[in-house]
Amino acid sequence: MKALNLQNGALTLRNDYSISQPGYGEVLLQIQLTGICGTDLALLNGYADFNGVSGHEFVATVVGTGAGVDSNLKGKRVATEINQWCGKCEQCSRKHYSHCLNRRVIGIRDHQGCFAEQIIVKANTLHIIPESVSDRQAVFIEPLAAAFRIVEQLQSHDYRDVMLVGTGRLGQLIARVMVLQKKPLTVVVRHDRQRQLLRGLPLDCIDESAVEAKTVDVAIDATGQQSGLMLALHALRPQGVCVMKSSYPSPIAVDLTKLVIDEIELIGSRCGPFSTAIGALKDGRIETESLIDATFSLDDHLTAFALAHQKGSMKVLIKPH
Amino acid sequence: MKALNLQNGALTLRNDYSISQPGYGEVLLQIQLTGICGTDLALLNGYADFNGVSGHEFVATVVGTGAGVDSNLKGKRVATEINQWCGKCEQCSRKHYSHCLNRRVIGIRDHQGCFAEQIIVKANTLHIIPESVSDRQAVFIEPLAAAFRIVEQLQSHDYRDVMLVGTGRLGQLIARVMVLQKKPLTVVVRHDRQRQLLRGLPLDCIDESAVEAKTVDVAIDATGQQSGLMLALHALRPQGVCVMKSSYPSPIAVDLTKLVIDEIELIGSRCGPFSTAIGALKDGRIETESLIDATFSLDDHLTAFALAHQKGSMKVLIKPH
Repeated sequence: MKALNLQNGALTLRNDYSISQPGYGEVLLQIQLTGICGTDLALLNGYADFNGVSGHEFVATVVGTGAGVDSNLKGKRVATEINQWCGKCEQCSRKHYSHCLNRRVIGIRDHQGCFAEQIIVKANTLHIIPESVSDRQAVFIEPLAAAFRIVEQLQSHDYRDVMLVGTGRLGQLIARVMVLQKKPLTVVVRHDRQRQLLRGLPLDCIDESAVEAKTVDVAIDATGQQSGLMLALHALRPQGVCVMKSSYPSPIAVDLTKLVIDEIELIGSRCGPFSTAIGALKDGRIETESLIDATFSLDDHLTAFALAHQKGSMKVLIKPH
Repeated sequence: MKALNLQNGALTLRNDYSISQPGYGEVLLQIQLTGICGTDLALLNGYADFNGVSGHEFVATVVGTGAGVDSNLKGKRVATEINQWCGKCEQCSRKHYSHCLNRRVIGIRDHQGCFAEQIIVKANTLHIIPESVSDRQAVFIEPLAAAFRIVEQLQSHDYRDVMLVGTGRLGQLIARVMVLQKKPLTVVVRHDRQRQLLRGLPLDCIDESAVEAKTVDVAIDATGQQSGLMLALHALRPQGVCVMKSSYPSPIAVDLTKLVIDEIELIGSRCGPFSTAIGALKDGRIETESLIDATFSLDDHLTAFALAHQKGSMKVLIKPH
């Protein structure tokens, strides 16, 4: 079967990709639709040192079940948590599955990804997608869950307002999630198109130059760049919280004394609750259709990735079938 | 009167220091006993760019009251919050007084310090010291409050165990505070003397080389050094919390992607609750006498600061009278 194989930073289309039968607790999935994420682009530059089939945002149909798995799952349309946990380690025993110490991560670490016709995953990481959620919506479940993770992490915090720096693929979803929190939201926007995509949402778009020091309680950096992080920290009031929602290409020199004096909190944020994301898509609280730029076949992967690489581009989809 | 004056990194004893009468809402204090803190040493190296009378840990007696202040305060023995707040700014309106946007900080920013015979402070920043708390205990109120600040900041966190890196002046107090939290506490110790001072406390002392990766939920860096911070981050389990309890001499390059992937929380921590510290000294929960190395007069300030500068030295006191 076809699959996009990443080897030393180069993507090639294989026609001879084969996978085994699902083992105990596993399912075989037919992949319907996938999304290209910023992490997929970073992998091309050596992030996570991954070789193999990449891709981790997808919607699929169960076509095979291994031992110990309810065979009624066959035919169900599903999304899959990207962290394939062991269920045995200390983190799993605390139900921190996404931090499983032995986890394999779909298309990122020790696990084949979704830029392929089929994939095998653990059945206990599946989420069944309601009929009313289309494939084009469902492909956003994983990144949308990551955006909702911020809300989980802020739950115990008392904050009045939020600034979001970065309105790319993930930033657009974060903006949509944060407006649901009913706190004043200011979004720092660099590109006209990103600004247009936020139109109609109850938030304020501002230029970078309009960011004032010490004016918000929560600042989210979704740029993955030093400049974005510095802007977020600059905007924070004392005792403010800075959420880092992207990985950074290299270590960043941070004036930690400022963090000490102002008692700033810096939180890393990664994977989030799939069920919350599915619920928000189902009841229409989150709109995603406008974020889709184009859909390509696996054969057209070069065009797909070239488009995804373009500045200001949003979600590019790949349909393996 | 006598005062230690800091000018361009050099301390000199002035005999001609004079202060005015207390104004509206202010009190005049006669200073009984002061402590030399790590920040006082950092000020000598240019930290905070402060010139003037330094010193901020002290116990004093009210000898004069300005207009609008209860004159019955005269004769009371007091400690004073180092943050002299405005009461009008946004932070004050949220009762975040130690983060007052217009604050003057005793002996650190825009306010004369306590290495002098007298000082004028705002009456609403005083805390009356119970009779059963001696001057030698009371001089620890400010740094002890800073140690208790960690407990306040961890209040909403669910954590099982704690590691403390750094057992100098502040680290010793943090160790004493954290054992009260009844969570397993591991302390990374570099000097024999520091280890001896922790004897009898319910905690484990280990060498730096014995620190294992991803083994604690909370790690406190009280070293103010890059190596200490890195060790603290290294020791943290996923979703762990790193409390930065000291300022750092310069920006530090941090691998923020690790913080994102493990969803680590990095919190700056500064001033804390005086009343909690006073209560803990009063009821004997916190022992401080063993931490006092020596007491000097203002005339002997050179010897006092030389001793405070020595590696492994603990609290050096200066008695202005």
